[in-house]
Amino acid sequence: MKIMERVIIDYNNREAYYIQIYNYFKNQIIMGKLQKNDKLPSIRRLSLDIKVSKTTVESAYNQLVVEGYVNNIPKRGYFVVELKDYSFSKTNEKPQIIEKEKDSHYINNGVDKGSFDNKVWRKLYGKVLQEDEIFTPGDYQGEVDLRQEICDFVQKSRGVRCNRDQIIIGAGIQYLLSILCSLLRDKHHDIAFEYPGFNQAKNVFEDYNMDIIPIPVLKEGIDIEKLKKSKVKMVYLSPSHQYPTGSVMPIDKRIEILNWAQENNSIIIEDDYDCLIRYESRPIPALQGLDKAGHVIYLGSFSKILLPSIRISYMILPLDILENYKWIKARYSQTSSKIEQLTLAKFMAERYLEKHLRKIRKLYYKKNEMIVNFIEKRAEDKIIILGHDSGLHMMFEVNTEKTYGEIIKVAKQYNIYLEMVESFHKGMKLVVFPYSGIELEKIEDTLNILIKDIF
Amino acid sequence: MKIMERVIIDYNNREAYYIQIYNYFKNQIIMGKLQKNDKLPSIRRLSLDIKVSKTTVESAYNQLVVEGYVNNIPKRGYFVVELKDYSFSKTNEKPQIIEKEKDSHYINNGVDKGSFDNKVWRKLYGKVLQEDEIFTPGDYQGEVDLRQEICDFVQKSRGVRCNRDQIIIGAGIQYLLSILCSLLRDKHHDIAFEYPGFNQAKNVFEDYNMDIIPIPVLKEGIDIEKLKKSKVKMVYLSPSHQYPTGSVMPIDKRIEILNWAQENNSIIIEDDYDCLIRYESRPIPALQGLDKAGHVIYLGSFSKILLPSIRISYMILPLDILENYKWIKARYSQTSSKIEQLTLAKFMAERYLEKHLRKIRKLYYKKNEMIVNFIEKRAEDKIIILGHDSGLHMMFEVNTEKTYGEIIKVAKQYNIYLEMVESFHKGMKLVVFPYSGIELEKIEDTLNILIKDIF
Repeated sequence: MKIMERVIIDYNNREAYYIQIYNYFKNQIIMGKLQKNDKLPSIRRLSLDIKVSKTTVESAYNQLVVEGYVNNIPKRGYFVVELKDYSFSKTNEKPQIIEKEKDSHYINNGVDKGSFDNKVWRKLYGKVLQEDEIFTPGDYQGEVDLRQEICDFVQKSRGVRCNRDQIIIGAGIQYLLSILCSLLRDKHHDIAFEYPGFNQAKNVFEDYNMDIIPIPVLKEGIDIEKLKKSKVKMVYLSPSHQYPTGSVMPIDKRIEILNWAQENNSIIIEDDYDCLIRYESRPIPALQGLDKAGHVIYLGSFSKILLPSIRISYMILPLDILENYKWIKARYSQTSSKIEQLTLAKFMAERYLEKHLRKIRKLYYKKNEMIVNFIEKRAEDKIIILGHDSGLHMMFEVNTEKTYGEIIKVAKQYNIYLEMVESFHKGMKLVVFPYSGIELEKIEDTLNILIKDIF
Repeated sequence: MKIMERVIIDYNNREAYYIQIYNYFKNQIIMGKLQKNDKLPSIRRLSLDIKVSKTTVESAYNQLVVEGYVNNIPKRGYFVVELKDYSFSKTNEKPQIIEKEKDSHYINNGVDKGSFDNKVWRKLYGKVLQEDEIFTPGDYQGEVDLRQEICDFVQKSRGVRCNRDQIIIGAGIQYLLSILCSLLRDKHHDIAFEYPGFNQAKNVFEDYNMDIIPIPVLKEGIDIEKLKKSKVKMVYLSPSHQYPTGSVMPIDKRIEILNWAQENNSIIIEDDYDCLIRYESRPIPALQGLDKAGHVIYLGSFSKILLPSIRISYMILPLDILENYKWIKARYSQTSSKIEQLTLAKFMAERYLEKHLRKIRKLYYKKNEMIVNFIEKRAEDKIIILGHDSGLHMMFEVNTEKTYGEIIKVAKQYNIYLEMVESFHKGMKLVVFPYSGIELEKIEDTLNILIKDIF
């Protein structure tokens, strides 16, 4: 048997002795200094040798056995196993940091900082933390308490008719759409999509290999004639406040598209993401409320009306699709924090959401008015505002020679988030400008930067 | 012009007058009592008529115009538009509640109720609520602070070598895998999967139409010979604590599979979900730490080691795949709550997670020991325990005549969650039994129920 080098232990090293011993032998084996069938010193001998307890040595050897570096042959001792040739990477070696700046923090695309009552939220979250609920996984479909609150909320505020069973909660529209895709993929291979429209949603359908048929958006919402011609069986819509154009679908068009859905047995996915925020009039009732034949899937979210930093969205399924969902339900774990779901349920039950909505409507209306007035007075020649009576953003038609690339680049330097929209008519640039995050006092400065430096 | 019926307002109704007026005309139009080109009474006339202010009437008319029921022709007045034939659903009509019980609450599949310091968590969450961060959307990839903490954590505890740039945070392994699938789908159409294995992961690959090639799991992890024969380019593994068998892959097999990955330029997806909880020895270092050629994608989660009710998991990408990710990054909004991400970052930075882990290791070890002793004493003939030196569940080989269906059914009545695993050899039933959620005092009773009533 090969003579063992003395095992070196650094008695001042904070690392436990058994770990030092384990590392010593592991490295000997890795470096090939100990090879197949070499015998490790007996536990007794080594413990005397380096003056540590037998159990210390035993733990080290045990770890080597568990990880498979050595075999323990009863009554004979510990023997090194054969390791296939492999150049081990030194454990200190580490990929160098690719210095990458944090997604730059835009001043305009969040929600208003004054709008949220974090004391109440903190109190309710703390209450939930005391419940046993937090120790178990969440309901696949979402917490029943929250689904009940959402059910009452959408009926009252949007005229949506459903029961809590039809509601599926998830961490964002995208995740809910991916569940929907796996439900519908067999029947549906293409989908009509508003152009311009909400790209984050489109991405999901693309991931599921669906063909996207772009249908232009007119002043009164999606072009229904073109939709009919396209012969698709599924369409993605935001009829009450289209993103990004802000167009609203009037009642006669709504009836027309619902009739189309019934006659062709088609599905309408209604994205109702920020329709509670309307200024000149009351919110437009949702399409889902008019649908009696179960052709509308309704999507809603709390990102815009509460906080973008909690991730709670919901999808409301017609009863027949719900039946199919129940079969695959258990395939997908819930993505929304159960604790925040239950917090939101309390927040709604105690009417804090209603209060919050009244507050932000006033708040955003002020900002909206300010921008409209400013542009009418100071930038009429440069900017035409398209649709500004709702939502948290405006679409501008900008008269500029600059390219989209130049505009984005400069805007980013000022931490202003702008989204570019391919223009319908040449020359003019279409730009989406979210304003919800800008503080009231900073709106004029921001607009001055937009006009002078960016456009 | 047709004579208008008198507009009825209920002056005691809590509903605002303008809404009552709006509803009145809306219903007249829907019911066909007012038809195309019928003229609404002038604002002035109606306001005198029913004794409300002009602005009240104007708001009602405005709402009708916005929703498209009437047109406002300047200087002439308000005229009803033509509505296509459509039988409107009465707004009170609602799908009846399908009474459905909440996902039954199992007594055994959560985490230990004593294990979590909710006071600390509440305090830290409250701190985050005071930051401006909560008003803006989260980083697509996950909050930098948390990614840095995870980076240090996995290096220290699992020997994983990476920088924070390689870490992607998401609400659950499934969502992270769906991002991975959309990254790899063009190159990879099939994936080798441990059999038996973690079905929730398999579901995602199926959704992306990948072919699943099942590879049996042996005592020392996945059958590498069969893997090599399968000719696949991608494999899903849990080498340090396989789910559900609990098998551990020894170092020589690890080297073999890493060599295979290098020679075939294949990808290993390492799911390391609960490997910090090990009893008889230290955690087995992760495969990722041995991999120097960038063939291992590492997956981790906080569901088992912290709470299943917050949804924070992470994926660590090799540098070349990371490059591709950066292109599609902005396609997917972050799914984990930004507030809870930042809370967890503080929780880790202030060493509460380490403390928590020390606590639960002891705790679960006690439960583990108790079960092992109990079964050795009282159920040797009925139950063989397969792999019990780590994790939060055990796999039993049960000697019973009952069918899987019968076992599950009865277990559910006792609120005990059991997962069935197709047996390798006939006669014996393989059953996964999670025990983390059972209170220490209730373990014996639960086992008695298992033995007497369920198996």
